[in-house]
Amino acid sequence: MSLSKLIDKLIHTVINMKIGIVGLGLIGGSLAIAFKKAGLEIIGVSRKATTCATALERQMVDQASTDFSILNGADVVFVCTPIDYVIPTAKALIPHLKPTAILTDVASVKGTMVQAIAPLWQNFVGGHPMAGTAEQGIDAALENLFIGAPYVLTPIETTPQIAIDTLQSLIEILESHFYICAPDIHDQSVAWISHLPVYVSASLISACLKEANPDILNMAKSLASSGFRDTSRVGGGNPELGLMMAQYNKKALRRSLHAYQQELNQVIELIEADNWEAIKTLLQETQNQRGTFL
Amino acid sequence: MSLSKLIDKLIHTVINMKIGIVGLGLIGGSLAIAFKKAGLEIIGVSRKATTCATALERQMVDQASTDFSILNGADVVFVCTPIDYVIPTAKALIPHLKPTAILTDVASVKGTMVQAIAPLWQNFVGGHPMAGTAEQGIDAALENLFIGAPYVLTPIETTPQIAIDTLQSLIEILESHFYICAPDIHDQSVAWISHLPVYVSASLISACLKEANPDILNMAKSLASSGFRDTSRVGGGNPELGLMMAQYNKKALRRSLHAYQQELNQVIELIEADNWEAIKTLLQETQNQRGTFL
Repeated sequence: MSLSKLIDKLIHTVINMKIGIVGLGLIGGSLAIAFKKAGLEIIGVSRKATTCATALERQMVDQASTDFSILNGADVVFVCTPIDYVIPTAKALIPHLKPTAILTDVASVKGTMVQAIAPLWQNFVGGHPMAGTAEQGIDAALENLFIGAPYVLTPIETTPQIAIDTLQSLIEILESHFYICAPDIHDQSVAWISHLPVYVSASLISACLKEANPDILNMAKSLASSGFRDTSRVGGGNPELGLMMAQYNKKALRRSLHAYQQELNQVIELIEADNWEAIKTLLQETQNQRGTFL
Repeated sequence: MSLSKLIDKLIHTVINMKIGIVGLGLIGGSLAIAFKKAGLEIIGVSRKATTCATALERQMVDQASTDFSILNGADVVFVCTPIDYVIPTAKALIPHLKPTAILTDVASVKGTMVQAIAPLWQNFVGGHPMAGTAEQGIDAALENLFIGAPYVLTPIETTPQIAIDTLQSLIEILESHFYICAPDIHDQSVAWISHLPVYVSASLISACLKEANPDILNMAKSLASSGFRDTSRVGGGNPELGLMMAQYNKKALRRSLHAYQQELNQVIELIEADNWEAIKTLLQETQNQRGTFL
């Protein structure tokens, strides 16, 4: 069977599946809306009865409960809690799953999650939909949140192929761009392009704030424009999210931070030494290569 | 006389002035269009006869020449060449100015310019309109480029007040936000909010590119999104401009780079030490304080 035929067949299969979603915030709520629109049956779980009521009222889910036992008929379950609740939530809900159920999460760090959950549930596949807005909670949920966004799965050697294929089919329904890699490749990749920028950017704001001459600090604040705005944006974002990145992806973030530190030190040395040829080469390279990331 | 009356009077005076503009690119061309629209008489100078012809044809200027002698009747002259031509251009045109002429430039670094030009012409005032686009040349010139943008003047102790007041009136005509400070305060301020971000951002791109594992580099490139886009933008900009910032504002940029380096090193130490309370405090501070710059 060709790959596209296989995917069609799987999509046909998943259309009849029951999807469990635990945590009905921005990500969980948006998954619920998108899958419900595609005709799938959705079972929602939230810590709060009010969130369950809202989800039912807005027809984002077919059933909802604060109790994990409602998931006993689910074919695929997405854990969509904040990152620090993913592992305890998975542990708590696993006893309620049917043996063939596929379990996945949506946390932005995968090594820690896979290491903790895969030994408890063979049909677990780490996942990371790279979509979001500045908003949180069920009211922030959007039907189109995942369209065109990357969605990474991070299976390991023991992950059954059917679990990967089923999740890939669901990701196709979301119209996301599907990627697959090992958990540590994922974590180092997001350290480079997501977590490192947060700390590079936060250090910029923090260094500026330490300017001791108030005339300079005030003038800097008056003159700051689009360059400062863009470079400082992610460093001025949600502190809890930034903290979680460092706590849960510490090893990979450290590796990127040390490489960045070395690069910065070298740039400073080149400027000290008036090595303008090397600085020009560096800036030409960064101008030429930036597009390969975007 | 009240300040607003004084400014009205000065605007009335400047309306009858002849404005010389040397260099008819993005900045010079945009100044020409804006002042011409306000009814001022504009004398343009460009190295290229074709640019002079274009400026005349588009009625951006009343007269144009490749020869500085055309400026002999000008009341105010703006030097709008690239930064590395400002000082030689000022030296070459000064012999053609009438004794009362006011001279200014538009370079993004002020200490070097003021130090070199002020001793040669008492009526020189350094200036920096903080506006621009990614485009260059006379075709990029825009009537509204300076509206709402900061425009800084950097007089020194010996600068005649009339020179400052006249330029302030012209800046009011542009509808820019007027600021005034010493050249070194300007240079350190722009080092913080404009030049440091370029090198912070370029070092980010450059460090990512040095990832030795191709699987990680390729996945990082696939997953890079708005966070990387914004944080890397100015580091992937015009290499000549970034180089000039370092060459002409080396002292202030070094000071900011060293402070940033220290800040980054401290952030890395906090992460190494699992000092999550301190990291959270830092990220809360950067989130709270970023808005004071924007």
